[in-house]
Amino acid sequence: MTASIERFHTVVIGAGAGGLTVAVGLANLGRRVALVEAERVGGDCTNVGCIPSKTLIELARRVGDLPVEQREQAARDALAAARRRRDAVREHEEGWLADSEGIQLVRGRARLAPGQRGAPEVLVATEGGPVRRLRAGRVVLATGSQAVVPPLPGLERADAPTSTEPTSTEPSSTVLTNATLFDLTSPPAHLVVMGAGVIGCEMAFAFARLGSRVSVVEMADRVLPASEEAAAEIVRERLAAAGVTTRTGVRMTGYDPRTGVVSLEPAGADAAPLPAVIERVDRVLVAVGRRPASRDLGLEEAGVELDSRGNVLVDRAYRTRAPGVYAIGDLIGGGFTHVAHAQARRLVRYLTVPFPLVPEGDHGSVAFTEPEVGQVGPTLAQLRTRWPEALLSVHRVDLADTDRGGTMGLQDGFVQLVAVRGTGRLLAATVVAPDAAEMLPLLTAAQRQGTSLWRLSRLEVPYPALGEAIRKAADAFVFASLPRLHREAGAYLRWRWRSRPAL
Amino acid sequence: MTASIERFHTVVIGAGAGGLTVAVGLANLGRRVALVEAERVGGDCTNVGCIPSKTLIELARRVGDLPVEQREQAARDALAAARRRRDAVREHEEGWLADSEGIQLVRGRARLAPGQRGAPEVLVATEGGPVRRLRAGRVVLATGSQAVVPPLPGLERADAPTSTEPTSTEPSSTVLTNATLFDLTSPPAHLVVMGAGVIGCEMAFAFARLGSRVSVVEMADRVLPASEEAAAEIVRERLAAAGVTTRTGVRMTGYDPRTGVVSLEPAGADAAPLPAVIERVDRVLVAVGRRPASRDLGLEEAGVELDSRGNVLVDRAYRTRAPGVYAIGDLIGGGFTHVAHAQARRLVRYLTVPFPLVPEGDHGSVAFTEPEVGQVGPTLAQLRTRWPEALLSVHRVDLADTDRGGTMGLQDGFVQLVAVRGTGRLLAATVVAPDAAEMLPLLTAAQRQGTSLWRLSRLEVPYPALGEAIRKAADAFVFASLPRLHREAGAYLRWRWRSRPAL
Repeated sequence: MTASIERFHTVVIGAGAGGLTVAVGLANLGRRVALVEAERVGGDCTNVGCIPSKTLIELARRVGDLPVEQREQAARDALAAARRRRDAVREHEEGWLADSEGIQLVRGRARLAPGQRGAPEVLVATEGGPVRRLRAGRVVLATGSQAVVPPLPGLERADAPTSTEPTSTEPSSTVLTNATLFDLTSPPAHLVVMGAGVIGCEMAFAFARLGSRVSVVEMADRVLPASEEAAAEIVRERLAAAGVTTRTGVRMTGYDPRTGVVSLEPAGADAAPLPAVIERVDRVLVAVGRRPASRDLGLEEAGVELDSRGNVLVDRAYRTRAPGVYAIGDLIGGGFTHVAHAQARRLVRYLTVPFPLVPEGDHGSVAFTEPEVGQVGPTLAQLRTRWPEALLSVHRVDLADTDRGGTMGLQDGFVQLVAVRGTGRLLAATVVAPDAAEMLPLLTAAQRQGTSLWRLSRLEVPYPALGEAIRKAADAFVFASLPRLHREAGAYLRWRWRSRPAL
Repeated sequence: MTASIERFHTVVIGAGAGGLTVAVGLANLGRRVALVEAERVGGDCTNVGCIPSKTLIELARRVGDLPVEQREQAARDALAAARRRRDAVREHEEGWLADSEGIQLVRGRARLAPGQRGAPEVLVATEGGPVRRLRAGRVVLATGSQAVVPPLPGLERADAPTSTEPTSTEPSSTVLTNATLFDLTSPPAHLVVMGAGVIGCEMAFAFARLGSRVSVVEMADRVLPASEEAAAEIVRERLAAAGVTTRTGVRMTGYDPRTGVVSLEPAGADAAPLPAVIERVDRVLVAVGRRPASRDLGLEEAGVELDSRGNVLVDRAYRTRAPGVYAIGDLIGGGFTHVAHAQARRLVRYLTVPFPLVPEGDHGSVAFTEPEVGQVGPTLAQLRTRWPEALLSVHRVDLADTDRGGTMGLQDGFVQLVAVRGTGRLLAATVVAPDAAEMLPLLTAAQRQGTSLWRLSRLEVPYPALGEAIRKAADAFVFASLPRLHREAGAYLRWRWRSRPAL
């Protein structure tokens, strides 16, 4: 360990959505950056997340529309195309890095160590080489998250990706996570998806369209347990229509890969009796959640504080408790590529011009299910724990009641806006629509700016477009509010006087 | 003519998008309204415009994806479905009217006549019945527009719809306009579309997908002459890919329905030689423009002023020169259903609470072509006639360069933002994308509010979505502007000092 010290303006640990953005942003501003990555450039999003999953979802829909006899080959082609897309994006990002003069890509496993005068030093264990010592005025942690694999019989065989090798081989284990799922070269005959959250539902649709028999198992009493209930209900119906068997309120107790049997038990005391096993299972996809990749980085020894779930604790400027050490993205509970990206941009700004940062505001999120489910702000159930029911104004417009929904023949989907009665301030919005992801930015901006539904009712939407549902929901608020404006303003002011919730 | 006078709060002439909205809005506020309609409730949009055309566009795409042997029947089914949709929407609107207590639907042809003390009186010639005399404090003209049919040999046979009968029969004439096009029960073998504007291009795609051979003839040197040039170029390529023959820079000189020959001549002096005829033509769709339906209403006699194109001249509150007479929609040059709708809402507000109205601002528009073309604000060519080139900052991002565009495999489409250098105020935006109509409301709101690209660069877009192109274009502005901010602010201020254009 007599390696000489290499000095940089900033050391970034993790070359995923957050780390790449910080590194490229700082390098563009003339800073010298070391970017440390033990696995593949691009992180989860590019390699085992959004890029392959969204490509597969898109292609799988087309496979589902083909005549039956063409689907088998088309499904294999779709899986191969998703891998090619992943590889192309990664090569693009690697080229982008190679072209960024100020960035040195350091391959290896990083670990924080106290440096001189308590400033952090990053030790990088390179493969087969010496340990490198990187020192910088600031270290940015952006190592992301990993799939949680519960300690159940049979699941210990889940592969973890450990290779930096960009080519992939058919997974040897029958237990998969997002890290290995996209290495499949053909759809399993019978896939059990453990967990009906966003990833679980997205992949259930995709593999059903590719021709797999798919069974989804979820402990909660419904699919998409974190989403708006009415949205989850539509997704549940669509899963059933796609031939997916969904079992909610049940817990998986084990999986025997030799016999292909998944065993179950009721998750609640009052659960209905159910078949205690699922038979003839080829593959199990574990999608019960993510945990921050905060282990083995020497964080606690370096003074970085974690919460009980392993998330790194940061302040508004992404500073951890250790001086000069920052953290962003899934590592601090971000959960989405666009959140990591936004945090990275804010951090670059802060590291360049350290003006105080305004609060981040709520982040929008989209489940790329059928239809897509977009959400910004809390769900209605969450809002009801924070606001008196009488102050919430909820307006839902079905897409089938818009003219575009009619011309498209839509049978489901809606826009729901939740506002404060009287003032009309937008608290939360839900969009369940074929292209919810394209409709959400407007609502995210409106929710963050505290735009009122009085104003949104004057939104101009080209005719005919599904966005009309946004304006119609705001209109419904206006019509409901006009006659009782005085009374409601009074009720709101009395309530604000008594309680000042953290909004 | 001894009919007794019937009195109302407001008489609305025309039960299309604008008139219906005014009537229902005022009735909801407790006003007694007479709504006069000579033809079909719903106006052009419902009966011969957006509703059947967008339904047909949607269904035609699906027909185009079918195996060849299934297309002929599917095309007939699609045309029938578009008619059913039109009829369903009209029945819905008629039911809505019947349920509105304050509205009396008066069927017949309306005409303004000077009433007592110069206040307008509306005379309605009912079919086979007496002339009714309607009097109100205010009259709203909302008669819309009609297809222009140039006085060329062969085109005089274009049908005009004169029946109030909701059922339709195959058009007897081989010369069609939007008023008769949707009565076709099967796609023509060879359709010539005269005019490559929005309607012409939309219907060229639809009928090509339905199996027609389609030839488009356009006097200007490109398709979509009023749209952004780069957008028109993409649509031209897609038309060619869909098998549509497009001839620009040529003028139609006549059509012989007996021989099926359309004759052409070059539109410009330097035009290239071309086949002077198109042969074996079954149907001609005339789509060279619209003119306001301002004839035979007694407008000029009543003191309402028109411009040279027949548009009714109004002030910001939609007041014509005749006291108590208002006009909205296509009749004042609106051009789009959502514009008529917005004007109707503003007018209802003004008639209820006559506060001064703020200027309307620019309206967004969408061509439902492949891909859709959305625009708000002037085109780049128009802006260059108003602004010095050095003050315009133009940023275009191809959708193929966004991650969602990649996962969707998009080959074309873009987002273009035009802003003032330095301040970054958004002047115009163009979206060429599969669902441009869902992306435009955000940009319309931003352009109307004078939002800057500095701010739009902080837009949160869920990952991955095509909306990323909006943020990327704003980012490009920020990166281009940061290094030269001082210089540009100076140049802008000097220019503003010298000239104050009407922005």
